Amino acid sequence: MSQGEYKKLLDEIKPMIENKAYEELENSLAPLHPADLADLLEHLETEERISVFSLLTPERAGEVLTQISPPIQESITNDLDDQRLTQILNELDSDDATDIFSRLPRERSEVIIRLLNPGVREELKRLTGYRTDTAGGIMGLEFVSVNSESTIGEAIEKIREKSEEVEKFYFVWVVDDHGRLVGVVSMKDLLLEPIDTKIKDIMKTEVISVDVGADQEDVARIVKQYDLTHVPVVNDQHKLIGRITIDDIIDVIDEEASEDFSLMAGVMDQELAEESALKISRARLPWLLVGLLGGLVSAIVINHFHGSIEKILALSFFIPVIMAMGGNTGIQASTVVIRGLATGEISIIRIGKRLLTELWVALINGILCGILLGFVVSFWLSDLPLGIGVGVSLIMVILFSGAFGSFIPLLLKKFNIDPALAAGPFITTSNDILGLLIYLSIITRFLVAP
Amino acid sequence: MSQGEYKKLLDEIKPMIENKAYEELENSLAPLHPADLADLLEHLETEERISVFSLLTPERAGEVLTQISPPIQESITNDLDDQRLTQILNELDSDDATDIFSRLPRERSEVIIRLLNPGVREELKRLTGYRTDTAGGIMGLEFVSVNSESTIGEAIEKIREKSEEVEKFYFVWVVDDHGRLVGVVSMKDLLLEPIDTKIKDIMKTEVISVDVGADQEDVARIVKQYDLTHVPVVNDQHKLIGRITIDDIIDVIDEEASEDFSLMAGVMDQELAEESALKISRARLPWLLVGLLGGLVSAIVINHFHGSIEKILALSFFIPVIMAMGGNTGIQASTVVIRGLATGEISIIRIGKRLLTELWVALINGILCGILLGFVVSFWLSDLPLGIGVGVSLIMVILFSGAFGSFIPLLLKKFNIDPALAAGPFITTSNDILGLLIYLSIITRFLVAP
Repeated sequence: MSQGEYKKLLDEIKPMIENKAYEELENSLAPLHPADLADLLEHLETEERISVFSLLTPERAGEVLTQISPPIQESITNDLDDQRLTQILNELDSDDATDIFSRLPRERSEVIIRLLNPGVREELKRLTGYRTDTAGGIMGLEFVSVNSESTIGEAIEKIREKSEEVEKFYFVWVVDDHGRLVGVVSMKDLLLEPIDTKIKDIMKTEVISVDVGADQEDVARIVKQYDLTHVPVVNDQHKLIGRITIDDIIDVIDEEASEDFSLMAGVMDQELAEESALKISRARLPWLLVGLLGGLVSAIVINHFHGSIEKILALSFFIPVIMAMGGNTGIQASTVVIRGLATGEISIIRIGKRLLTELWVALINGILCGILLGFVVSFWLSDLPLGIGVGVSLIMVILFSGAFGSFIPLLLKKFNIDPALAAGPFITTSNDILGLLIYLSIITRFLVAP
Repeated sequence: MSQGEYKKLLDEIKPMIENKAYEELENSLAPLHPADLADLLEHLETEERISVFSLLTPERAGEVLTQISPPIQESITNDLDDQRLTQILNELDSDDATDIFSRLPRERSEVIIRLLNPGVREELKRLTGYRTDTAGGIMGLEFVSVNSESTIGEAIEKIREKSEEVEKFYFVWVVDDHGRLVGVVSMKDLLLEPIDTKIKDIMKTEVISVDVGADQEDVARIVKQYDLTHVPVVNDQHKLIGRITIDDIIDVIDEEASEDFSLMAGVMDQELAEESALKISRARLPWLLVGLLGGLVSAIVINHFHGSIEKILALSFFIPVIMAMGGNTGIQASTVVIRGLATGEISIIRIGKRLLTELWVALINGILCGILLGFVVSFWLSDLPLGIGVGVSLIMVILFSGAFGSFIPLLLKKFNIDPALAAGPFITTSNDILGLLIYLSIITRFLVAP
């Protein structure tokens, strides 16, 4: 639905909610896709949301709940009584149920777990045992596997048995007598080959799987690299224990991109979905305090050179340009390196080569900008020595920031630390301080106290 | 494959290439997945790459070529003779062939189009007619559709006919007598229902499709919202004319995220995959020049207030902290708003509410940081009025930058301009200048010339 259609629908249903015209309301909501209904709920006030949500069957309520952003999901589950929440969890796919369940407050989850159907309870216990950012943490247990010795007819019977539980499936995975993943059969082959064909005769044995403990970022990279739509998850004996669907992978890709954006911008990641001004302020304060501290160190640096500024007041004019250029160069270099490492376009095999390239880039742009600034300053203030001094400082500052901005993320990556940590606060603040030091030292050394 | 495995494989095959041990080389490469082979080629020198690539069958060469990053893909196609390139294009899926074909130099593409198989030629002519950033530009023509009046048995025959051409398919789309999309049938239903069942009796009629002219970003949003794996593409008569697969959607998501990162960092988007220092320098220069210009304007602003700085030299100490805090606040606000708009977490229906929240956030953080800075300055320089002046200035600067940083992207979005344009250069540079103006005006008004 477009934003316009939402608005129209909102105007239509709001009076129905107010007038408690529930039958009419149910009719208006019935044709909606769960995703649209979820979006609609996000645009309602809390009270209205509760009224609408209570009209849904447990199955539909569950589908809607998994599509809603975490803060609103939590607000809805808080308002549900234990019995209704249990009904909803019983209906959901194991991975979606785990997501909702693991966001419940501890005391409540202990109550709920006892009310669930025994099968669902076991699944939730297993899945909540994995770290949320691993393959185990995002996998579901709804899949079909057949023994390699069975026939297509037997495979079809197995699919029929599970067809209620498994909503979408495009592949049947093949296991040996020990449950180890040995192949994959497409639905197309099941459809086209004779019914008594043995699975082992039509299966593809090169099946790409991920380990249950694999980092979700690595899972996403594998899915992208091999253009997969489903990934089987195996344990350390290579036994098939779960599956990850492409929509969960897309969530991971979005999550990781948002994380990198947040780091670059110096805000906490959870903030993106947050609406309370106080919580947002708190999420942004840390970087502001880093900036404040950095700014105070810069003040101390300038104070240290106050003799030079007293002699040549124009030195203060160029503090902003030195800072801005150092900052820009550093952000450009670090962002490109961080993004390149994230998408795999920069390989750590060739780190040295990349660093060299970045140094050349900084040198070229430094010389160009330095000469330009030098000219402008010389003519504006009719002071050639000052122009040369400011220009040379700018070259040094750009060269330094470019090197620093590309080196730090590569260094972090080398030591398996998330390189995106180098974005935002640290590089910018360090560049500010060191840029000022370089600038004021050069000018003082050559112009003020030669 | 892990980076370690690549390195090992590289060490293994490099001597084979040098010694022209092509048979041995073919044996080493045979078990590799095309995606791994593509990665391997990216790590070879140009000459080595040509040797390895010439060993591949046209079909495998095509699969590898579609997985390689654009600059290296172009270098490979440049080295292929027309006949070989034609063979490869004949083998590829229509969307992949279009990608490679549309990157060829104009004169060459005119030669190649005449050499292609007639069927492929027609497909390429049709697909290159669509804008590359629309549904038409990323769709392929390999899909299976059946008439709603036909039976499962007939559908299976149609799948059999197309099973060579269509590699992966999980759904069969259903059309009416005019070719209009009316439903979808899952492979599961084809497998489980009796063979003489009519398609119209088992099809799902709520099938989500995209218009051929739809922006690729909107297509990606629809795929994410409705958890799709394949999207049918329709023309303005709702006729089914193509399909988009999930791996192409993931490419779009990555592309859009990279675009936003590039805008934030102030580099050209193409740069990410670029390796030549000169080209990288050129891609980064525009923002550096914006920064240089902004810095010179800042210099003029400070020069305008040079009388104040002569009287209170310490004013120059706090130029960096004012600039850094304004910059940080602006980047935080704009990034969160831009990202929120991109992921749909911020809805334009509630722009006013979001702006108000951002103002509160800026006010809270401004007051906290302003008071902190005011205290430090008062004690450090034993100058209470200066401390109060600097603190109040910081509050004003943070309030202004927060408002500006969130307002501009929302404004751009309102007028359907990509809000990510507001990231990076413009907001930061404007904030620097206006921050300095606010700071120096306040101090001059109340402390220097009361």
